[in-house]
Amino acid sequence: MQQYSVSIDDIRSRCRIMSDGLDSSVLRDKLLEYLREDIGFGDITTNSVVPSDLVAEAVITLKSDGVVAGIRESIYIFELASVEIIEHVYDGAVAHKGQIVMKVKGPARSILTVERTVLNLLMRMGGIATLTRKMVDEARSINHAIKIACTRKTTPGFRLFEKRAVELGGGDTHRLRLDDAVLIKSNHISAAGGIKEAVERAKSSTSFTKKIEVEVTSIDEALDAAKCGIDILMLDNMSPNEVEQAVSSLSEMDLRNRLMIEISGGVTPENLKSYAAAGVDIISMGMLTHSVKALDINLRITKTWIST
Amino acid sequence: MQQYSVSIDDIRSRCRIMSDGLDSSVLRDKLLEYLREDIGFGDITTNSVVPSDLVAEAVITLKSDGVVAGIRESIYIFELASVEIIEHVYDGAVAHKGQIVMKVKGPARSILTVERTVLNLLMRMGGIATLTRKMVDEARSINHAIKIACTRKTTPGFRLFEKRAVELGGGDTHRLRLDDAVLIKSNHISAAGGIKEAVERAKSSTSFTKKIEVEVTSIDEALDAAKCGIDILMLDNMSPNEVEQAVSSLSEMDLRNRLMIEISGGVTPENLKSYAAAGVDIISMGMLTHSVKALDINLRITKTWIST
Amino acid sequence: MQQYSVSIDDIRSRCRIMSDGLDSSVLRDKLLEYLREDIGFGDITTNSVVPSDLVAEAVITLKSDGVVAGIRESIYIFELASVEIIEHVYDGAVAHKGQIVMKVKGPARSILTVERTVLNLLMRMGGIATLTRKMVDEARSINHAIKIACTRKTTPGFRLFEKRAVELGGGDTHRLRLDDAVLIKSNHISAAGGIKEAVERAKSSTSFTKKIEVEVTSIDEALDAAKCGIDILMLDNMSPNEVEQAVSSLSEMDLRNRLMIEISGGVTPENLKSYAAAGVDIISMGMLTHSVKALDINLRITKTWIST
Amino acid sequence: MQQYSVSIDDIRSRCRIMSDGLDSSVLRDKLLEYLREDIGFGDITTNSVVPSDLVAEAVITLKSDGVVAGIRESIYIFELASVEIIEHVYDGAVAHKGQIVMKVKGPARSILTVERTVLNLLMRMGGIATLTRKMVDEARSINHAIKIACTRKTTPGFRLFEKRAVELGGGDTHRLRLDDAVLIKSNHISAAGGIKEAVERAKSSTSFTKKIEVEVTSIDEALDAAKCGIDILMLDNMSPNEVEQAVSSLSEMDLRNRLMIEISGGVTPENLKSYAAAGVDIISMGMLTHSVKALDINLRITKTWIST
Amino acid sequence: MQQYSVSIDDIRSRCRIMSDGLDSSVLRDKLLEYLREDIGFGDITTNSVVPSDLVAEAVITLKSDGVVAGIRESIYIFELASVEIIEHVYDGAVAHKGQIVMKVKGPARSILTVERTVLNLLMRMGGIATLTRKMVDEARSINHAIKIACTRKTTPGFRLFEKRAVELGGGDTHRLRLDDAVLIKSNHISAAGGIKEAVERAKSSTSFTKKIEVEVTSIDEALDAAKCGIDILMLDNMSPNEVEQAVSSLSEMDLRNRLMIEISGGVTPENLKSYAAAGVDIISMGMLTHSVKALDINLRITKTWIST
Amino acid sequence: MQQYSVSIDDIRSRCRIMSDGLDSSVLRDKLLEYLREDIGFGDITTNSVVPSDLVAEAVITLKSDGVVAGIRESIYIFELASVEIIEHVYDGAVAHKGQIVMKVKGPARSILTVERTVLNLLMRMGGIATLTRKMVDEARSINHAIKIACTRKTTPGFRLFEKRAVELGGGDTHRLRLDDAVLIKSNHISAAGGIKEAVERAKSSTSFTKKIEVEVTSIDEALDAAKCGIDILMLDNMSPNEVEQAVSSLSEMDLRNRLMIEISGGVTPENLKSYAAAGVDIISMGMLTHSVKALDINLRITKTWIST
Repeated sequence: MQQYSVSIDDIRSRCRIMSDGLDSSVLRDKLLEYLREDIGFGDITTNSVVPSDLVAEAVITLKSDGVVAGIRESIYIFELASVEIIEHVYDGAVAHKGQIVMKVKGPARSILTVERTVLNLLMRMGGIATLTRKMVDEARSINHAIKIACTRKTTPGFRLFEKRAVELGGGDTHRLRLDDAVLIKSNHISAAGGIKEAVERAKSSTSFTKKIEVEVTSIDEALDAAKCGIDILMLDNMSPNEVEQAVSSLSEMDLRNRLMIEISGGVTPENLKSYAAAGVDIISMGMLTHSVKALDINLRITKTWIST
Repeated sequence: MQQYSVSIDDIRSRCRIMSDGLDSSVLRDKLLEYLREDIGFGDITTNSVVPSDLVAEAVITLKSDGVVAGIRESIYIFELASVEIIEHVYDGAVAHKGQIVMKVKGPARSILTVERTVLNLLMRMGGIATLTRKMVDEARSINHAIKIACTRKTTPGFRLFEKRAVELGGGDTHRLRLDDAVLIKSNHISAAGGIKEAVERAKSSTSFTKKIEVEVTSIDEALDAAKCGIDILMLDNMSPNEVEQAVSSLSEMDLRNRLMIEISGGVTPENLKSYAAAGVDIISMGMLTHSVKALDINLRITKTWIST
Repeated sequence: MQQYSVSIDDIRSRCRIMSDGLDSSVLRDKLLEYLREDIGFGDITTNSVVPSDLVAEAVITLKSDGVVAGIRESIYIFELASVEIIEHVYDGAVAHKGQIVMKVKGPARSILTVERTVLNLLMRMGGIATLTRKMVDEARSINHAIKIACTRKTTPGFRLFEKRAVELGGGDTHRLRLDDAVLIKSNHISAAGGIKEAVERAKSSTSFTKKIEVEVTSIDEALDAAKCGIDILMLDNMSPNEVEQAVSSLSEMDLRNRLMIEISGGVTPENLKSYAAAGVDIISMGMLTHSVKALDINLRITKTWIST
Repeated sequence: MQQYSVSIDDIRSRCRIMSDGLDSSVLRDKLLEYLREDIGFGDITTNSVVPSDLVAEAVITLKSDGVVAGIRESIYIFELASVEIIEHVYDGAVAHKGQIVMKVKGPARSILTVERTVLNLLMRMGGIATLTRKMVDEARSINHAIKIACTRKTTPGFRLFEKRAVELGGGDTHRLRLDDAVLIKSNHISAAGGIKEAVERAKSSTSFTKKIEVEVTSIDEALDAAKCGIDILMLDNMSPNEVEQAVSSLSEMDLRNRLMIEISGGVTPENLKSYAAAGVDIISMGMLTHSVKALDINLRITKTWIST
Repeated sequence: MQQYSVSIDDIRSRCRIMSDGLDSSVLRDKLLEYLREDIGFGDITTNSVVPSDLVAEAVITLKSDGVVAGIRESIYIFELASVEIIEHVYDGAVAHKGQIVMKVKGPARSILTVERTVLNLLMRMGGIATLTRKMVDEARSINHAIKIACTRKTTPGFRLFEKRAVELGGGDTHRLRLDDAVLIKSNHISAAGGIKEAVERAKSSTSFTKKIEVEVTSIDEALDAAKCGIDILMLDNMSPNEVEQAVSSLSEMDLRNRLMIEISGGVTPENLKSYAAAGVDIISMGMLTHSVKALDINLRITKTWIST
Repeated sequence: MQQYSVSIDDIRSRCRIMSDGLDSSVLRDKLLEYLREDIGFGDITTNSVVPSDLVAEAVITLKSDGVVAGIRESIYIFELASVEIIEHVYDGAVAHKGQIVMKVKGPARSILTVERTVLNLLMRMGGIATLTRKMVDEARSINHAIKIACTRKTTPGFRLFEKRAVELGGGDTHRLRLDDAVLIKSNHISAAGGIKEAVERAKSSTSFTKKIEVEVTSIDEALDAAKCGIDILMLDNMSPNEVEQAVSSLSEMDLRNRLMIEISGGVTPENLKSYAAAGVDIISMGMLTHSVKALDINLRITKTWIST
C-alpha cells in the first residue's frame, strides 16, 4: 500500500506528543469504554445468527478523498477482538475515494461486533484530519512556517482522539487541558484589574515550567502585554489588516522576536490566506473539531469460510 | 423566559427514555469525566489570576436560531461547581439568535473553569437537536405519524448525549447498544444462508423480550422477511419509488399491518419528503449525529463583585 | 468426556445472548472483582505453607446429579491464575453424581487460592441450571414450544451469571435490566389512569425498537390490553383455569395470534404442568434464581510434584 | 413498630464488625453498582407511563415470619432516590407474616424504579438472617456460649451483605477474605509435609497479628496440631461422638483451654444439637449462605397524589 | 489562632496551581482511596468498643516547630466523617512546638477511625513544607528572587500532595508529569545526536504551548543550548564556581536574558547559599520530597460525652 | 550476581504474606496508577527526541550500601513497557555501593519513560528495607527470637509497598488495615469504661478469627489486660526498666506464656538494644516508614543501537 503527497516520516515526527508507549494503558481504557458503549452485553444479532466458527476477510474503503486517521485505534480494537490485520495505510496518509485503507481477517462474529466502533473512529478522526490538512496546506502556501492549531472546542469524552486527528492532519494540538499553559483572556484581565496585574499574578503563582499567553483585542493591548515578558500573544477577532499593523508595531518596539503570535476568532476557510499573510506564527480554528463532516468510510466482508 | 412552537410538555413526554432519576449516577460520572478531561489538575490561569472571593453573573446566549439541548447537563455541572442557576429555558425549546438560554451566578473562578465544558455540551447537543427538529418538521408536514430516527453513527464516548439530543429534537433514539434489539443485515443473512434461517436462529437464541428487525434491499427480500413473522422491516438504499412499491406489495399480501417499516440509507434533507410520502413508519438518518454543525453559543460575564 | 441427554450443539445455540466475544472485557472485570473479594491481599495460608514450586493436578467432581454451569467462568479464572485446563465438560451438560467435570494442572498455590471462587460459581450456577432444566423438561412434556423464563429476582451483583445459568438450563433470560423492554404493571396502570392511557404513553415515549408488555389480572383487562396493539400480555396470578379462559376469549376476538402470552405469579413445580397445558407461550418463575439449592461440587488435588 | 424476642441493643452490639461509619463509601459503591445492574439506562416503563409529579406512599410487608435484614441498605437506596423513610423496624428484628417492616414516601417514579433492588436485598438477606437465627437458637438451647459461623461459600459479588445477614441473625462472620486468618487444611498439610511443618511455616511467614487455625480429621491429628501452639482447631467431618472424644483427649493433655475448637462439615439442621452438645466453641455451616430460601417480601403502593 | 513570619495571603497566592474548585473531585477520590487503604472493611476495634452515641472533642498538636501542611486535606476527611471543625490554622502557617493546629468535634468513632490517615497526611506534608521553607528562606537571604523547586523524586501515588506541600513551603512544583514541559537530558541528547538536533526535534514535534528546557554539564554545552532558542537551561552537577562562570559567559554572548537558568544535582543544605549567590533563577532539590523527616504531630481526645 | 549475608531462601520465606500469585491484579493496578501519575499523556521529551527504533541497554546501580527492595515491582513495570530483564538481584539482597542490581534491554523510549517511576520505587523501598534490616540485626544480636514491626504510619496510597519493604528487611508488617486485628488503645479503654469492659465488647462483637491486642501504660494495667484473656499486650512508652518489671510481674502471675508482648513508643536506634534485652516478643517502630532516607540509586544507559 502506498501513501501520497505527505511522507509517513513527516507524519510520524508530528505525531509524537501522545506516545505509542506506556500510555497505551490510557488508550486501552478509552477504546474498551467505546466498545462497551456500543456493544453492551453483546451483539445479540451476530451472536444468534452468525456461526461461531465462521471466518471472514473484510476491507475498509474510503468513499471520498481524505486524510486517514484512526488506524492506530482500529488496529488496537481489532487485536482486542482477535482479528488479524492483513494490511493498512498509515495514520496521516492522504488517500483517495475507493482506496482500501485496511484489510483484516478473523472470526466473522468479532468483525461484525466491532465494525461500528471502528468506523465511528475512522469517520470522525478522518473528517478532522482531512479538514486540518486542507487548512494547513492553504496557509503554508502563503507562509511555510505557520502553524494551524485547534482549540478546546472538542466533543466531551473524545478530546484526545480529536487532538490526535489534528496532529495527523499536520496541525498543532494547542492545550490538551486547562493545566497545560496559562492563557489569560479578557475576563481574567478585568478580574485582575489590568494586563500587567494579571501577568504578574500568573508569574508568581504558577510554576516556571509553564508558558504564559495573553489574549488581546487591540494594538495597544498587544503592546502592553508584550512588555510584560510573556511567551505568546493571542490577537483575538482582529481583521487581517489590524493583525498586520499589530505585528509591525511590535517589531518597531523590538518586542516581536521575544514572543510567538497567535491569531484566533473569525478565521474561516475563506479568509485563512489573508491571515496567513499577516506575519504571525499560529492560527487557531475552532471548527477543526466542532463542526466537521465525517469522512465517508465503509466495511465490507469479501470472503467467508468455516474454520477447520 | 419563553419557549416557542413546541410546548415543553410535549418535549418532556418525548424525553423520558433516559430518566432523570436514579441513573443520574451515570450522568454524574460522565459529566465529571468530561470536566476532568478539560480541567486536569486545575485551571491554572483562573486560579492564579482571578481572586477567590470574586463573584460573577453570567449569561449564555445563542448566536443563531436553534433547538436548545444540554440544559440539564449544564445545570448539573454548574451545581457541581457551586454556581447558582438564576433562569433557563427548557431542553427542547426552540430559541432564536440573541436569546439568553441560561443566566447563572457564582464564584467567578468556578464559572470560568467550567465554561468550556458547558459550552461544548450545549453547542454539540444543540446542533443535533436543531437538525433533528428540522427533519422531523419537514417529514411530518407530509406524514404526521412518521418517526425520524438516528443511528449508531455517534461519537465514541458521547453517545448517550447525542441520542438525548435527538430525542429533544423530536426524533427516535433507535438502538442505544447492540443488545437493544436484533437487527439482521446482509452480512448476517449470507452467514446464516438465508433470511428465513437467520430469523429462525434469532428467535430461538434471543429472549422473547427483544424485537427482531431485518434489513432488505429488494421487494422480494422484503416479502420473504415479512413472512417470517418479524417485528420491523428495514428497506435499505431503495428509491422512494421502490419503497412505495414494496409497501403496496406487502399490503397486498396482508403483511403490512403486522410490522413496522423503516427506511435507511441515502436519505438526505433533499429527498426526505419523497421518502416521507412513501407510506413507511420510520426514516433513519446517520447524519443526525455524524456530520453536524455545532450551534453557536457563548458565555459572557455581565457583572462581578467581591463577596462579603 | 461425554455429555448426556442434551446435545452440546443444542445447548450452544441457546447460549448466544451473552456473547463469548468482545464483551469478555465485562466478564473479566466481574471475575477479577469476585477473586479480589475472596482473596484480598493474598491467600496468606497457601503462600506461607505451600512451596512456590509445587505443581498440582486437581479434579472437580459433582457430588449429585445436575446440569453443569460456570465452566466458561472457571476456565477464565484458572487461566488468569496460570492453571492449565486438561479436560472439561461443556456448560449445559447434564452430568451425574461422581462425574469429573474439570481436570486442571498448575502451581499448587494458584489452584488453592482460586478454589473457593471457582466452586462458588459452579455450585450456584449449577444449582440454577439444574432447576431450570427440570422445569423446562416438565413443561415441554406437555407443550413442546413453551418457554420457561426467569425474572429480575436475582442476587445483586451476580445477575449476569444467574441469567446465563438459566440459559444453560434451557430457559429464557427475560429482561436483563429495566431498559430492556416496557413492562406495564398494575402500579403503572393506575398511575396512568388506565391500560389504554398507559400503553399510549409508552408507545409515544419509548423507541420503536422496544417491545411493550402489559400485566393483567383478569380476562377483561386482558382483552383491553390486547386491543391496544401490545407485543406481550402477562397474565398475573391467575389459576390455570382462568388462564385457559383468557386464551380462548382472546382467540375468539382474533387477538391471540398478534401477541405472546406470559404466565407469572404463583407458578410452582407442583402446578407447572397445569399452566403448561393452558395454551400460553411463556411461564416465568422467580424461584429459578431466588431460592435455589447449590449444586454440591468439590475440588480435590490428585497429585503433586516439584517443578523442575 | 415493635420488635420481638431479640432486643435491638443486643443485635446492634453483634453488628459492629462492619461499621456504619466511613466505610459507607464502600457500601455506597456496592449499592450503586446493584442499582445500575437492574436499572441500566433507566426504567423505561416507569419514565414513560408514570407522571413525574406523582407522589406515592408505599409499604414493605413480610409474607412469612422471619428475621429482617437489609434495612440499612434499603434506607440507603431510598435516600439515594430521594424517597423519605416514614418508619422501619431495625435490622435483626424478628418479625411475623403480614408485618410492615418499612413505610416510605416519595416520587412514584423513584419508588418503582428502585423497588426490585430493594426487595432483592431484603429477600436474600432476610432469608439468611432467618435461617441463621434458627440455627443459633437451637444450638444455644444446648450450649449457651456456642457460636454459629458461616463460611466463604457465598455468592460472588455479594459476600459482604451475606456476612452481614449472618451477623444480624446472631452468627459469626468467620473469615471475610483469605487474608483474614491462616486456616491450614489437608492440602496445605500434605504440601508442607506435616502439621508441625505447616504451622511453623505459617508462624514464621505471617504477621504475629494473625490467628492460626488448623483443620484435622482425626483425634491424633487434633493432638498434634494442638501441641504446635495454634489458636483454633477445626474438627472436620467428624461425628458428634468423635468430636466429644477429641475434646476430652485434648482436655486430658491440658491442651483444651489454650485454643478454640470449631466443628465443620456435615453439620445439618438435624444433627446440629448433637454437635452443640459435644463441648466445642464454634460450629460452621456452609448452607447458611449457599442454599437459602429467600424471605417472601413485597412492596405495595398505598396512596398516590400529585405534588403541588 | 495566629500564624507567623509568613502571611497567609502570601501563602495563598503561591498555592493556586492546584485549584480548590472543581478538581476537588480528584481530591475526593484520592482521599477516599487513602481512607480505604487504612480502614478496609471498618475499624473493628472502635466499632466494637466505643459506643455509637459517644461524642468527642479532639485537638491536633505539633510536637516540634514547623510549617503546617495538609489542613485542607484533613478538613475534607473530617467532613467526610461528619466531624465538625472548630478551629484550625491555615495551610502554610509557621507554627511552634505545642501549638494546636486543629480542633474538632464529632462522633468519637469517626474521629478515631480517621485519626491515622489525617495524621499521616499532616506529618508527611508538614515535613516537606518545613524543609522547603527552610531552604527557601536561606536561599532568599542571598538572592531574594530565587526559586527553590522540587523534582519528580516523589512517593508513587502521593505526588500531588507532596508537590502541594512544596508550594505551601514557598517552593516551585516543577513538572507534575512528563507531559508538562520538555526537559532534554544527556540520554536524549546522545540519542538525537547533539543538542541542536534534539531541540529542533522537540520544537517540531510538540505543541508551541510547551516550554523547552535543556540539561547541560559544561559551559560549552550551555552556550550551545542557549543559542538554540530554548526557554530554560539546566546546569547539572556543576560547582557554584562553574555556575558563576557559565552565567557570565551567557551574559557576554547576550543569551542570559532570553532564558531562565536552573541548577540541579549536588545541592545540599550546606552548599545552598553558594549556589544561590551564583546568579541563577531556580535551584531544584530532590531531597525536598525523597528523604524527609515527618513532622511530629498527635491527636488527643480532650472531652467526651453521650449525645442526647 | 550474588547476594550477601542473608540467603535468598530465607528472604523468600519471609515474604509470603503478599502473594506473587493472583493478587498481582492488585499489584498491576497500583503500578499502572503510579506510571500514569508520572507519565500523564506521554513523555513528550522522549517521544519527540529519541527515535522510536533506538534500542538501549541500561544498568541500575546502588550508590550506597543497602538492602534492595522493589525489584519485583521494577520487573513488572519493565515488562509492561516491553523492556527485557537481563539480570537482577533478588528482593531482600544486601548489596554494596557500586553494585549493579538490575540490567535491562529494550526500546530506548520505554526505558527513559519509566525510569523515574522505577527509581522512585527502588529508592523508597530500598531505604525502608535497609533501615529495617539494621534494626532487626541489632535487636537480634541481643534476642534472636525478637520481631521488629512497623506501624500504620505510612505514606497514603503507598502502604502495601512500604509494608513489603519492611518484610524484605526482615521485619513484621503488623496490621495492614484497621480490620486486621483488634488493638484497644487508651481512648478506647476510657470510652468503654475500663480494660475489662473494652475486651469483653471486642470479644462479643468481632469474629473469633481476629486477635485482640490491648495497649497499656503501666504494670497494673498490664496485669489487668492479661487477665482478660487477650492475645497480645502492648506496653506503650515504658522505659526498658519498666518493661522488664512488667514482664516479670506477668511471669509471676503465670500470665506471660499465654500472650505475646509488644513494645511501642519511644523506641529509637539508640535504645533499641535495651528494649530487646527486656524479654518481649515484638518491638514496633514508626520511623521504619515515616522518616526514611531514600536509598541512592541511578539508571545509566550503557549502549544504544538501531533495531533492525
